[in-house]
Amino acid sequence: MSYFTHLSKFSASKPKSSHLFPLFPPLTLLSRFTTSSSSTSPDRYAGLGPTKPHEKPRVVVLGSGWAGCRLMKGLDPQIYDIVCVSPRNHMVFTPLLASTCVGTLEFRSVAEPIARIQPAISREPGSFFFLANCTGIDADKHVVQCETVTEGKETPDPWKFTVSYDKLVIALGAQPTTFGIHGVHEHAIFLREVHHAQEIRRKLLLNLMMSDVPGIAEEEKQRLLHCVVVGGGPTGVEFSGELSDFIVRDVRQRYSHVKDYIHVTLIEANEILSSFDDRLRHYATNQLTKSGVRLVRGIVKDVGDTKIILNDGTEVPYGLLVWSTGVGPSPVIHSLNLPKSPGGRIGIDDWLRVPSVEDIFSIGDCSGFVESTGKPTLPALAQVAERQGKYLATLLNKIGKANGGRAYSAKDLDFGDPFVYRHLGSMASVGSYKALVDLRQNKEAKGLSLAGFISWFIWRSAYLTRVISWRNRFYVAINWATTLVFGRDISRI
Amino acid sequence: MSYFTHLSKFSASKPKSSHLFPLFPPLTLLSRFTTSSSSTSPDRYAGLGPTKPHEKPRVVVLGSGWAGCRLMKGLDPQIYDIVCVSPRNHMVFTPLLASTCVGTLEFRSVAEPIARIQPAISREPGSFFFLANCTGIDADKHVVQCETVTEGKETPDPWKFTVSYDKLVIALGAQPTTFGIHGVHEHAIFLREVHHAQEIRRKLLLNLMMSDVPGIAEEEKQRLLHCVVVGGGPTGVEFSGELSDFIVRDVRQRYSHVKDYIHVTLIEANEILSSFDDRLRHYATNQLTKSGVRLVRGIVKDVGDTKIILNDGTEVPYGLLVWSTGVGPSPVIHSLNLPKSPGGRIGIDDWLRVPSVEDIFSIGDCSGFVESTGKPTLPALAQVAERQGKYLATLLNKIGKANGGRAYSAKDLDFGDPFVYRHLGSMASVGSYKALVDLRQNKEAKGLSLAGFISWFIWRSAYLTRVISWRNRFYVAINWATTLVFGRDISRI
Repeated sequence: MSYFTHLSKFSASKPKSSHLFPLFPPLTLLSRFTTSSSSTSPDRYAGLGPTKPHEKPRVVVLGSGWAGCRLMKGLDPQIYDIVCVSPRNHMVFTPLLASTCVGTLEFRSVAEPIARIQPAISREPGSFFFLANCTGIDADKHVVQCETVTEGKETPDPWKFTVSYDKLVIALGAQPTTFGIHGVHEHAIFLREVHHAQEIRRKLLLNLMMSDVPGIAEEEKQRLLHCVVVGGGPTGVEFSGELSDFIVRDVRQRYSHVKDYIHVTLIEANEILSSFDDRLRHYATNQLTKSGVRLVRGIVKDVGDTKIILNDGTEVPYGLLVWSTGVGPSPVIHSLNLPKSPGGRIGIDDWLRVPSVEDIFSIGDCSGFVESTGKPTLPALAQVAERQGKYLATLLNKIGKANGGRAYSAKDLDFGDPFVYRHLGSMASVGSYKALVDLRQNKEAKGLSLAGFISWFIWRSAYLTRVISWRNRFYVAINWATTLVFGRDISRI
Repeated sequence: MSYFTHLSKFSASKPKSSHLFPLFPPLTLLSRFTTSSSSTSPDRYAGLGPTKPHEKPRVVVLGSGWAGCRLMKGLDPQIYDIVCVSPRNHMVFTPLLASTCVGTLEFRSVAEPIARIQPAISREPGSFFFLANCTGIDADKHVVQCETVTEGKETPDPWKFTVSYDKLVIALGAQPTTFGIHGVHEHAIFLREVHHAQEIRRKLLLNLMMSDVPGIAEEEKQRLLHCVVVGGGPTGVEFSGELSDFIVRDVRQRYSHVKDYIHVTLIEANEILSSFDDRLRHYATNQLTKSGVRLVRGIVKDVGDTKIILNDGTEVPYGLLVWSTGVGPSPVIHSLNLPKSPGGRIGIDDWLRVPSVEDIFSIGDCSGFVESTGKPTLPALAQVAERQGKYLATLLNKIGKANGGRAYSAKDLDFGDPFVYRHLGSMASVGSYKALVDLRQNKEAKGLSLAGFISWFIWRSAYLTRVISWRNRFYVAINWATTLVFGRDISRI
């Protein structure tokens, strides 16, 4: 580590230029840059050891989705040190992700850095964010095994480390289901992360431009501009609606040469929006059809690089394929040696604790009530995750105040009221300034349900007030306003 | 192409669901989707042939930088059909690109879609944007050879096509100079396109997070957080200034654990900002040093994946390497069989025409006056390119109005006043709300030069009024305001 010695020597040999390049005092510099112990071999130390008596107890949060982030937001940094382990440093505001694929919203408006959700994580000496994946948990030793995330060439090779916890919260989410259909992972794009939305936007714009270049075959042009969405849940429907808005408003104007070639097909094996009431489903079907979305009932058998094959042998060529058929437990959840709920999620009790181990909690899409609670598995919704995160933050703060924050010290505490989920209703936009709002608590219950422009207004306002930071609330509003005034941005960057 | 027949059959066999999935009338659909001739082999037709007497004459513009875009903006679509051939569908507002690397501005705020600069290109039946590279020019036949740009797997293989022109404008720009130094292309990042800025931002945030993960060696941490900029021109200086602003304001707050490890070094072989006057250079040097940027005079000999080696043997480990040592002619310019200027650019006369061939013009960084004009080669500045584009648009409109728009029909026209370049001055920001403004026409001339906060204000206002669309002007202002209020966004998406 002697290159700065060289630099200062080098500077000394050119005194004439010193007024132009005044170098810092070499001593300060050298003391800062010389490391006595670590200069020969990389010192891959073990990680964060158990907290010491003079330190705050440590809550380790695995994951940075709705559940984990809502939890971190609510944890009291005066009581706990907070350590988050996740492969991404931000939370994605998933209900608005479909809007970013066509430029109605910008990507950054729906991504919230964890450091803005819980500032302690970047300021407190004992709180950290680690860009890493959890690879295992040792519940007896209260230790999480992790491995760093790196990408591309010229980033350091991944390495392993461990983090000791006083309390552990597993909020690792779920992964898209593919039903084992061949080719989905290779050729389809999911819609769960910001980079998915970026990929969709880039591909859509590339296809639009490719099909305008001389020499393209007619058939190829039709294929490139055929957008297929598989899965008729809220995500698939909202994305189809956004896409048809984009086509009607922006493609006709900005890509007028190819506007008659672009089409959207939504394939669903059962009913679209099956959790909504019949009247709203009808409304959505009519609305989508009117906007030019083709609704097809079918089951996908195989996905190739330019076409999908349905169960009855129908071949559907596509240029863009988006897959949104729901989620299921991810391999890491399977691999953890912890109790499971029916369906393979991590089992939790009424207080969101994982039974049979101490100090481990689980929230969000990765968790489900164990059979002994008698409660059904909750749907994989942002709403559920957010409510669980909020509940657990309050519970952990309470435990911490009662001196139960350390490992193995909360066993005999009174945990108070158990977690109860009350469904507040469902919303989905269907494009053309229309949305559905279903305020019934479940499919059988009675209650208010609306569809149309007013619902769309409620939909936008509801989301706008729930985007976490003021910065992003502001940007979402600005994005919506500029889309209205100037149209969507089509620069492919 | 019979998959939609299948779909309609399929639908017919499930009449119960038809209210949910009403399919479009099969006939309309089939007629739209059936192509009689092109179904077996890809019909790669030749491209755009020569314009016919009842059509408008066609101006083909190669490139979408400052010169080409300013030209297209000024061309009258009533007189000409405009065809732009470029590998990107937007113009980059390069003076503000450095600000996007650290999130002061958003990427989309500095990218202007060509369709917004010249709407005719997407609306007129005879005007087009082709996502392609120019591979050759046949001046006698008035034809440009092109090849499509594709990227990644699952995009069609590139194919060739030709475009006939009545007038051709070569505005292909230049490429970064590397002086043949080994490893620059492999390991350094340039700062000329939006994707460069995106790469820098992603890498910077990755390095910041990697260095906070347990198990990283001290030396590796210092390396990862050492940002090296090679080249002390306006781009290198502005980027260094932005980086130090980011460190002072945002890294200290958002990455407080590693804030003492991050450093910026600017390496320049001669003087920084050599085109500015001595007083301003002094000011910039002091300002950068005060913000913590290390200025080093040195010549790079070799670039490795984790360190660069200077001419005197000094090794400089780095985590991020940005290369901005100016530009030179690109290979395609070399390969064109056209007259050249001293320095290897495409030779032009006083009216920006390429001598010895008819109907070909060249503007921007790829062009230079031929020796016989007695004029010096103009610097590779946005200012020059923009002025040439504006001049040529007026000239071509005038030629078109005088019925000289067709191929081989303008030879005897009076072209009027030649192009004269008058330098309006140079500007560069140096971070911490400070900038330099040098209003002298050249290095020897007398004139106003300012440095400090007022200059910074002039710098921002000047750029704000020159960003082409109202949408982007608005977004730049909003970005600046939110950066001031909320700090820079650090989500790594």
